Amino acid sequence: MKKFLLFVLFLCPIVSMAQEQTKIDSTMTFRISEIEVYPEYLKEYLEFAHNVGATSVKEEPGVICIYPMQQLRNDCQIRILEIYASQEVYQQHIKTEHFQTYKQGTLHMVKSLDLVDMRQMAPECLPLIFNPTFTI
Amino acid sequence: MKKFLLFVLFLCPIVSMAQEQTKIDSTMTFRISEIEVYPEYLKEYLEFAHNVGATSVKEEPGVICIYPMQQLRNDCQIRILEIYASQEVYQQHIKTEHFQTYKQGTLHMVKSLDLVDMRQMAPECLPLIFNPTFTI
Repeated sequence: MKKFLLFVLFLCPIVSMAQEQTKIDSTMTFRISEIEVYPEYLKEYLEFAHNVGATSVKEEPGVICIYPMQQLRNDCQIRILEIYASQEVYQQHIKTEHFQTYKQGTLHMVKSLDLVDMRQMAPECLPLIFNPTFTI
Repeated sequence: MKKFLLFVLFLCPIVSMAQEQTKIDSTMTFRISEIEVYPEYLKEYLEFAHNVGATSVKEEPGVICIYPMQQLRNDCQIRILEIYASQEVYQQHIKTEHFQTYKQGTLHMVKSLDLVDMRQMAPECLPLIFNPTFTI
């Protein structure tokens, strides 16, 4: 029993660290970015978008979701679901090297860009759907 | 140590049940439903959409995400991110009582409906972003 208690005590800092990293507040930000890409740059753009999403979610606590998708009916229409735990997290995100590499590297590939801010409708579902630790 | 091993053994069936419930396959389905609602029905529609999303994610293994959002710039524009582990899961989902209640109950509230099928661009990020057990 003593070893089991030690095991539980060992887990506690990990759990509390993870909880601390979420820091969801009233400025939590939801967005669906609607992006149309020039066909000649599509392949290159997809790599940039993939890399920035994967790196952000892995490395930035509070970046809950950056999830890029392509329309099946039109490959050049990209939609990215973005969820940030707070505005502070978002402001930090757009200053990162990987975001700036994506932004500056794709400017000439983007035909149109509409950053559509959203309101979530089922807050209690957030921990059911999205990884509750928001870390790897 | 014996009790700790018993504790680990006790966890095993839970973990393997959860893994079994995911059953992701090559027919995994991604969609962003684009819905415009008549303003006079908006409040009522939001309740229906909230309920169907929450119930589906709680009760249907393999329904990874049904996450409804409203545009901040136009309350009547709803977007729902839907992710199903397979086409089989989706076909079962649309037969459920809660989905049929939503569908039939909101037909007259919906001005336009576009079910936009998507392709994910970062499959390896799926378990980083979405709840890896896909259950409560």
